[in-house]
Amino acid sequence: MKKLRLGMIGGGPGSFIGAIHRIAARMDNHYDLVCGAFSSSAEKSIQTGNELGLNTDRIYPSYEKLITAEKSLPEEKRVQVISIVTPNHLHFEPAKMALENGFHVILDKPITLSLAEALLLKDIQERTGKFLCLTHTYTGYPMVKEARQQILDGKLGEIRKVYVEYPQGWLSTAVENKQADWRTDPSKSGIAGAMGDIGTHAFNLAEYVSGLSVQKLCADINTVVANRRLDDDGAVLLKFENEVSGVLMATQIAAGEENNVKIRVYGEKGGLEWQQADANTLTLKWLDEPAQTYRTGGSYLSSFAQHNTRTPSGHPEGYLEAFANIYKNFAEHILAIQNQSEPKKESLDYPGITEGIRGMAFIETVIASGKSTQKWLDLKKS
Amino acid sequence: MKKLRLGMIGGGPGSFIGAIHRIAARMDNHYDLVCGAFSSSAEKSIQTGNELGLNTDRIYPSYEKLITAEKSLPEEKRVQVISIVTPNHLHFEPAKMALENGFHVILDKPITLSLAEALLLKDIQERTGKFLCLTHTYTGYPMVKEARQQILDGKLGEIRKVYVEYPQGWLSTAVENKQADWRTDPSKSGIAGAMGDIGTHAFNLAEYVSGLSVQKLCADINTVVANRRLDDDGAVLLKFENEVSGVLMATQIAAGEENNVKIRVYGEKGGLEWQQADANTLTLKWLDEPAQTYRTGGSYLSSFAQHNTRTPSGHPEGYLEAFANIYKNFAEHILAIQNQSEPKKESLDYPGITEGIRGMAFIETVIASGKSTQKWLDLKKS
Amino acid sequence: MKKLRLGMIGGGPGSFIGAIHRIAARMDNHYDLVCGAFSSSAEKSIQTGNELGLNTDRIYPSYEKLITAEKSLPEEKRVQVISIVTPNHLHFEPAKMALENGFHVILDKPITLSLAEALLLKDIQERTGKFLCLTHTYTGYPMVKEARQQILDGKLGEIRKVYVEYPQGWLSTAVENKQADWRTDPSKSGIAGAMGDIGTHAFNLAEYVSGLSVQKLCADINTVVANRRLDDDGAVLLKFENEVSGVLMATQIAAGEENNVKIRVYGEKGGLEWQQADANTLTLKWLDEPAQTYRTGGSYLSSFAQHNTRTPSGHPEGYLEAFANIYKNFAEHILAIQNQSEPKKESLDYPGITEGIRGMAFIETVIASGKSTQKWLDLKKS
Amino acid sequence: MKKLRLGMIGGGPGSFIGAIHRIAARMDNHYDLVCGAFSSSAEKSIQTGNELGLNTDRIYPSYEKLITAEKSLPEEKRVQVISIVTPNHLHFEPAKMALENGFHVILDKPITLSLAEALLLKDIQERTGKFLCLTHTYTGYPMVKEARQQILDGKLGEIRKVYVEYPQGWLSTAVENKQADWRTDPSKSGIAGAMGDIGTHAFNLAEYVSGLSVQKLCADINTVVANRRLDDDGAVLLKFENEVSGVLMATQIAAGEENNVKIRVYGEKGGLEWQQADANTLTLKWLDEPAQTYRTGGSYLSSFAQHNTRTPSGHPEGYLEAFANIYKNFAEHILAIQNQSEPKKESLDYPGITEGIRGMAFIETVIASGKSTQKWLDLKKS
Repeated sequence: MKKLRLGMIGGGPGSFIGAIHRIAARMDNHYDLVCGAFSSSAEKSIQTGNELGLNTDRIYPSYEKLITAEKSLPEEKRVQVISIVTPNHLHFEPAKMALENGFHVILDKPITLSLAEALLLKDIQERTGKFLCLTHTYTGYPMVKEARQQILDGKLGEIRKVYVEYPQGWLSTAVENKQADWRTDPSKSGIAGAMGDIGTHAFNLAEYVSGLSVQKLCADINTVVANRRLDDDGAVLLKFENEVSGVLMATQIAAGEENNVKIRVYGEKGGLEWQQADANTLTLKWLDEPAQTYRTGGSYLSSFAQHNTRTPSGHPEGYLEAFANIYKNFAEHILAIQNQSEPKKESLDYPGITEGIRGMAFIETVIASGKSTQKWLDLKKS
Repeated sequence: MKKLRLGMIGGGPGSFIGAIHRIAARMDNHYDLVCGAFSSSAEKSIQTGNELGLNTDRIYPSYEKLITAEKSLPEEKRVQVISIVTPNHLHFEPAKMALENGFHVILDKPITLSLAEALLLKDIQERTGKFLCLTHTYTGYPMVKEARQQILDGKLGEIRKVYVEYPQGWLSTAVENKQADWRTDPSKSGIAGAMGDIGTHAFNLAEYVSGLSVQKLCADINTVVANRRLDDDGAVLLKFENEVSGVLMATQIAAGEENNVKIRVYGEKGGLEWQQADANTLTLKWLDEPAQTYRTGGSYLSSFAQHNTRTPSGHPEGYLEAFANIYKNFAEHILAIQNQSEPKKESLDYPGITEGIRGMAFIETVIASGKSTQKWLDLKKS
Repeated sequence: MKKLRLGMIGGGPGSFIGAIHRIAARMDNHYDLVCGAFSSSAEKSIQTGNELGLNTDRIYPSYEKLITAEKSLPEEKRVQVISIVTPNHLHFEPAKMALENGFHVILDKPITLSLAEALLLKDIQERTGKFLCLTHTYTGYPMVKEARQQILDGKLGEIRKVYVEYPQGWLSTAVENKQADWRTDPSKSGIAGAMGDIGTHAFNLAEYVSGLSVQKLCADINTVVANRRLDDDGAVLLKFENEVSGVLMATQIAAGEENNVKIRVYGEKGGLEWQQADANTLTLKWLDEPAQTYRTGGSYLSSFAQHNTRTPSGHPEGYLEAFANIYKNFAEHILAIQNQSEPKKESLDYPGITEGIRGMAFIETVIASGKSTQKWLDLKKS
Repeated sequence: MKKLRLGMIGGGPGSFIGAIHRIAARMDNHYDLVCGAFSSSAEKSIQTGNELGLNTDRIYPSYEKLITAEKSLPEEKRVQVISIVTPNHLHFEPAKMALENGFHVILDKPITLSLAEALLLKDIQERTGKFLCLTHTYTGYPMVKEARQQILDGKLGEIRKVYVEYPQGWLSTAVENKQADWRTDPSKSGIAGAMGDIGTHAFNLAEYVSGLSVQKLCADINTVVANRRLDDDGAVLLKFENEVSGVLMATQIAAGEENNVKIRVYGEKGGLEWQQADANTLTLKWLDEPAQTYRTGGSYLSSFAQHNTRTPSGHPEGYLEAFANIYKNFAEHILAIQNQSEPKKESLDYPGITEGIRGMAFIETVIASGKSTQKWLDLKKS
């Protein structure tokens, strides 16, 4: 099996998400981490690079150096995929430069600081023909994929209602740490706090699972903790296509909550429910029939669920496996293209630029709605 | 122990809620059912009265007859409390007549057809000095009472967020039966369908548990099933006093859902969660401490929870017991007054006219908001 | 509807189970409590009788007086069913006297102090032709009845394995109260403590649900708390007919446990699981198919489950309702016989003398096994 | 960071556990897989080695070749740790040869085919001074480690009761596949089927969490599926030191069950419960206090739980992470020794030869007990 050579921008000392990306990349043995610019501090970059056992000459002090230097390496040695795990304000430029220099890109969400940047990035991506993957982790869970397939297959009948929620409690107080600092700083996070950090995940999950696009929304956006500069709480009424309605709740001040993203979708014939706290279970509920419990690893599952599962049923797979599924499918896509073979449809099922743009449109619309006295705002063109 | 003589208006053949009220009345042996006008059909009224073993001369063909005839009986024989379990359009007149003729009243929710009627009823009640009890069942659960006490005691700190939801699926199709018919008929149900039937329960639960009043709201109200004449689905953004925000979701088209009313409240220090499907559990969640599971019957519970519990912990109490708690507390209140003793504070903890008026204000505001392009509407004066 | 005239022996001040029996009797309006001998203290008997609103002349100072006096009343006034809710050592004599004087009997479990007494009681019951009902509460739950029907209908295929457990924690310390005192006193409780009090429930549940009889067993019986005179903990390997094996665990020293009786049964094609803590759910598990969640009130349930349910799905029914189902079915049986009509098969589904004898055989065998060095002991002839 | 060079014996095409070991080894970046003898078929070994991207000259056709060839390589290139993932009958010889040639060993459980082999292996291990790690996965879960710490810290008081269970359903029928075949073949699996495959896990978990040693047992061992050559079901009464009693249930014929290993331990003051299906939760139950829910990632957890966690609370970690914790701690131990530094106590917390010997003593005693008419058998000397 061929492996892809991976580089990383960001993910230095104290980064939570950088470590997650690296585990995800290692999980299925599709990537070799060969280089990195882990921090804007050269020293810290070297520290992390050393800890990861990289060759010293491929630990870079900046993303520009990384891209330039790698570009000059022989093709068989040069990095192939660059993973960008920096705060939001450092997404667009490195992604642009990476794509334009011939590298595939993995980006943490939200894709950019603004919708305008996201739309630009799409042009660049299309022009360069390189691939871009966006780590909306929750779509990586096998039972989320199963949920989507059940709905696509029409099992629930026409969809009528979508509830999605993402409660966290870790910003209930004026936390000061590396994770909290940039997320509550508009210059690094953009115009949205909670709505950007976790609201976009909830939004993406709702569109992915239901197969429907949000068309307009009405938002209540709050900053609950004193002196915080961005929203830390919000609830949104949604209107999808086909007059389907929905509710999105995302908060970071639900004291005592961990990270329990949850989705429920109801159609004419039945409903379904999934939540991360019980990630290996998908509940299907039926009119006048007993509910059913679908479980990761079940022999009765769709090819999409099975493709994204590593163990037999009863061996719980979690967040890291879901994250790794995104890396895995992206690698399978790239490798298939390299081999001039047809990628499996299951491999193509990962979030990318389209989902990134939808997320930015959501952020800009939801924040505008929070400030508006008008009830419904159309989702920004995306 | 003295028992109260109970009469019933409504609750004839095929009535679900009439049977529930009678079980609730029997549970704690505080009432003797002595008379009834169970149906507008004299024949059906007699049928039900006979089944219940009533004396034939106290089975009446109409509520007017019941009230007039009972009024003429000697005081020691005459009915004392009249339970009205008819559809909404038949609440106000019988309640008014009962109060004005000297009887205490138990009413099913919503209290009347309109806010105006509810406000009138308050005047009547205050003038007559008789008591009125409204069966908002969910506040009868011991763990709901515990939730309220925890918040009143400040355990969660200042409240910040309230989520309440009430999903049902039984109106997912164009059901035709006695239960569905009147609930979807504006002449019997009033201006609201789901919002009146279950939205008011959710609204009452949110105000009761949080101890906070809703001040304005923004609603998305839908009629999902074709040709239905009233709403069957809705979601509402709420603003309580003290800038506390909330979300209320109530639907009767969530196919596969039963009746799982659920509330979550978050404060500065922690949060709590209760749902009817696991009615004997109250979860308390804390910042940086393990969550706690409070259970009906626990020795550590408040006097309000203990007062409303009949069995030791581990013996599940359910919907009928919650319903019976409302009957029980109402009886204890009346009996204490009869005995010229001070009622226990726990006995006074049942819903009444104030909650009824709040519910009607909610209904009228939420339906107006559903039709409005204005984002926030103030709750109607109540 | 005719009601049965009910009398009670035991159930005076401080009795937990007496109050439960009375709620159960009231729930469905099939009984009128007309007399009682609530305590061996005449004073306490009068106190309880007064609280219950009985006529003074039908409050008796002893069970003998009750039976004799009621016998002498005119038939249309005389008590018809006598409920005996005393500690175990006061089961046999009152039951015998009641049956021999023409009264139907409801008895708390275990049926008697010894297997010999239970066998005698069977003779008496058969000779007198009166009916006897034993309150093995857990078989009264609708979902337990559904479990039994699923197995009887062959849905699981041939049964292979039965696990039943009954963990409590309330005797973890040397508790001193009315409930604990007699249960740990061999002169009142008999040769078994936990095995008699809750082990018999677990045993009854296992035989009822599986439809299989235990043939031999091997027990580990312990007295964990110092100075306790009877067992407070035990685990038992079971062999049913057809070489089906099982495990029964019952303990009263599982600190922190409430009362969570649970059963799991596995057959060739699938398994099922029910536990009291989630009493309205029955889980059916299948080979290579999603598990199913059956819920009280579901339209798809057997007539046995539906017959024993009072509310639509989603309105939790609990312990008191399960208890009341036993009273209800017993009443329906007696009333059908009185009316010379055929009782419904669902009404006949309540525990009686046969289950009582099985329980006593279990107690005597399990205690003997606990003391034996022989591995397997045959269940005593019953 | 230095990485360890890893080799693998077994784990060729179709091996479930080989793939799991490799993911576990990759997860934390402590190992580089450098060589393997993946199958007794040279062709298959090459196939797997190629898929894994190994250098062809380090893909071997037999474990003997692997050990001999690697031994001859320069020390800085030579494999350091050999992971043996073959069926049970191929554990002892490769492990012996690996240890004697200077390699550390990771072994799948049960450690050997017989207790005698296990005791021999211990001598060899002690003589060579190399380390041995046994992959009893379930002890790798952070919440299992927390459970052990809570008990060691005396939070539950003196332990009184241990329940452990391991229900599976996948051998409910006469399955024929690579996984089932060797597990039901005495020449490959040894004298035990289910008791060796999963009973040893349950036994290990019970001793690990409780901190107590089993001293004697009484077993009911069954072969339920016709023509199966080894046990597929069993239940065991346990006696630990200090007169603590317990029950172990392990079955592979519980149709519909996945893999839900579960443990409950009760002491004087409280109890605890953990199950793999909800692996990130540890429930602590208390006398007269609300139960507590400890969660992976909680800031209040012991250093042992925290050391074995990769993500913040609310990001579920699963089976692969638990497995990886064993690899991680073993690596940290070896690397500390290589660096002549003191290993952290948390790194030393992995199963090894002692646990392996206990497991073999359990297997031999439990199978003997299954055939015995004597009630209690002492655990074989270990």
